[in-house]
Amino acid sequence: MGYVSGLKCRECGREYPVDPIYVCEFCFGPLEVVYDYKKIKKVLTKKNIEKRPKSLWRYKELLPIDGEPQVGLKSGFTPLIKADNLAKELGVKELYVKDDTVAHPTLSFKDRVVAVALTKAKEFGFDTVACASTGNLAHSVSAHGAKAGFKRFVFIPATLEPSKIVASLVYEPNLVAVDGNYDEVNRLCSEIANKYRWAFVNINIRPFYAEGSKTQGFEIIEQLGWKAPDNVVVPCASGSLLTKVWKAFKEFKEIGILKELETKVFAAQATGCSPISTAIKQGVDVIRPVKPNTIAKSLAIGNPADGFYATQVVKETGGYGEDVSDEEVVEGIKLLAKTEGIFAETAGGVTIATTKKLIEQGKINKNETTVVCITGNGLKTQEALTGRTVDVHYIKPNLAAFEEVLKKISN
Amino acid sequence: MGYVSGLKCRECGREYPVDPIYVCEFCFGPLEVVYDYKKIKKVLTKKNIEKRPKSLWRYKELLPIDGEPQVGLKSGFTPLIKADNLAKELGVKELYVKDDTVAHPTLSFKDRVVAVALTKAKEFGFDTVACASTGNLAHSVSAHGAKAGFKRFVFIPATLEPSKIVASLVYEPNLVAVDGNYDEVNRLCSEIANKYRWAFVNINIRPFYAEGSKTQGFEIIEQLGWKAPDNVVVPCASGSLLTKVWKAFKEFKEIGILKELETKVFAAQATGCSPISTAIKQGVDVIRPVKPNTIAKSLAIGNPADGFYATQVVKETGGYGEDVSDEEVVEGIKLLAKTEGIFAETAGGVTIATTKKLIEQGKINKNETTVVCITGNGLKTQEALTGRTVDVHYIKPNLAAFEEVLKKISN
Repeated sequence: MGYVSGLKCRECGREYPVDPIYVCEFCFGPLEVVYDYKKIKKVLTKKNIEKRPKSLWRYKELLPIDGEPQVGLKSGFTPLIKADNLAKELGVKELYVKDDTVAHPTLSFKDRVVAVALTKAKEFGFDTVACASTGNLAHSVSAHGAKAGFKRFVFIPATLEPSKIVASLVYEPNLVAVDGNYDEVNRLCSEIANKYRWAFVNINIRPFYAEGSKTQGFEIIEQLGWKAPDNVVVPCASGSLLTKVWKAFKEFKEIGILKELETKVFAAQATGCSPISTAIKQGVDVIRPVKPNTIAKSLAIGNPADGFYATQVVKETGGYGEDVSDEEVVEGIKLLAKTEGIFAETAGGVTIATTKKLIEQGKINKNETTVVCITGNGLKTQEALTGRTVDVHYIKPNLAAFEEVLKKISN
Repeated sequence: MGYVSGLKCRECGREYPVDPIYVCEFCFGPLEVVYDYKKIKKVLTKKNIEKRPKSLWRYKELLPIDGEPQVGLKSGFTPLIKADNLAKELGVKELYVKDDTVAHPTLSFKDRVVAVALTKAKEFGFDTVACASTGNLAHSVSAHGAKAGFKRFVFIPATLEPSKIVASLVYEPNLVAVDGNYDEVNRLCSEIANKYRWAFVNINIRPFYAEGSKTQGFEIIEQLGWKAPDNVVVPCASGSLLTKVWKAFKEFKEIGILKELETKVFAAQATGCSPISTAIKQGVDVIRPVKPNTIAKSLAIGNPADGFYATQVVKETGGYGEDVSDEEVVEGIKLLAKTEGIFAETAGGVTIATTKKLIEQGKINKNETTVVCITGNGLKTQEALTGRTVDVHYIKPNLAAFEEVLKKISN
């Protein structure tokens, strides 16, 4: 008894039934979930939503499942922090941080998409889930998959940092480290997905999986008191999150929850992997693939699947795109931490530093309300800060030694 | 307009006004906050609580502040997970995990106590906060203190792991690494607290700070549907958390929210630092200090300040105490991760492994409801798992190579 009417090719518009498929047989365009908004409008009201448990499933009619939620019942509804200290630092009137650093269970927004993908995988009758990942997705599939009782195959590039590998292994998935880069891992996974009846969350389940990102958008609206912000800044890897946050806003308009929607959507990237922001700045529609070279590894997709769609959203809404150096990324992480007490991973540093740049350029109006999307926890990319923080004061265990430090600090 | 009637010595009962003091001038007993329960009973009803934002402040009348909450407005109300997979594994009927691995903002239960301590520090008019810590508390004071606009001094033993140091430095506190062990750090901090008018959260603010731990207890009751569990298993460092969870349960009984209270309270420790569980097992009232030697460093307090009171709670409620080896701690971490998708720090491994032991011993009844308190995130103590997880499968990027792995797994 869901509210999904089917799948539809984003390019040629051809329609498909709800199946674990992801690409149009005719034009190779990506498939997207289509909903019956008229039916949803009757059920999904502010009042009904407010009565429900505070998880991402409170918007379930706008998620692509037929029955009841089965995975990630405690995921989502992360805090929206009014960031007054950071606002002051950046010279803007009103700033909010959407804080997925405390996402349940694995501290990144991937917990949203995986909750939806695995619920759908259950509905499709899969007993095995899988993914190609460089970190956050591996953690989330391993964890959510364990709780939900799936067999799990997680594919990573063999060069991944040992700490990220341990943080997957603890959940005891079948972890396969492939001697190749992320693109090669992905290619191998597509082959396996063709041969085995497994739910690869970011391949054959991708149309459903990606819808989970909308919940970040829904929550922003609700947590702002059922209002859309003037500006939202979203980090881009594949570009999917940005398009889905915007889709969420539009859907709330469509079903009457939002009366007005004039949000400008901004794309944030690291200069070392900036195919989307580059296209936006050059005013072109073609995404030119790049070879990633940045510390923001969770954003390092050189050939972003949704890059074109992301640029269109930015254009349509009057937003912009920018990118920042690795040094600015580190400064962004530290700025957020010391002003708001939030420790974000490198992707969060990208978003903060890009927001700063956009404000300085006047692209984001200082008198408007801006939301920045922080997608993962800093403990996952701690190595990026080594040797780049303030100093430690080393002392002997006595008061005189400490007072030497105090003197030094006061000067 | 708070509900606190004063401070009171836990030993001799002497009363004190609400001040930043922590020890009885006459008998050197610890001071504790006393409330006016009759007054609280009229205001703090289930109905009123349920209407409030889902943070630890929804129980504010039972927290030692006079005005409105000022720090940690998004802290607390972490998920209570019905752990059916783990229950099955351990052979018990009903098991819940209180999951502070996603505590806001720094992923441990210390975010609760620091939220309360810093709100009280504001009320007292302090502009500088400080702490002695070996990790979690340092993170929380650094983060909450940044957001709240305090000057911050964080004292740690110089031997602390570099990763834990970076996770404090990102918030840019004044971090002082003392050439000595935790006890020496603590002693130095007491000296400084005597000389400077600073709020040391776990020294002169301790009576108020410690009350924050009660919120874990309040939340357990509410999230179980306003019922107390039959058993609760709490990890012990100083022993404070255990006594406060029990105090929370008793307070809910006192003000009429709980009709019945027959919970047995169990203490969990690592064998390498088990002064509390040892006293319980030996049936003695005297805590014999030990020199800690365990990977569960956040529990490694050899001379626990609240150890005696913790043993009394265990005795009073008919619970028990147990401890586990470092190997069992690692197995506990992995067991929780692979069954429930929750990655806990070493202290969580202690709690899970101890729970398993208590169930096997028959100390915890298999047909009863048990809650285990998980107090911090596994990314903070990841090094404990190095070389102790399942293996990675390394392959060349082709299907044949992967199918070799598949064959191996199926055999």
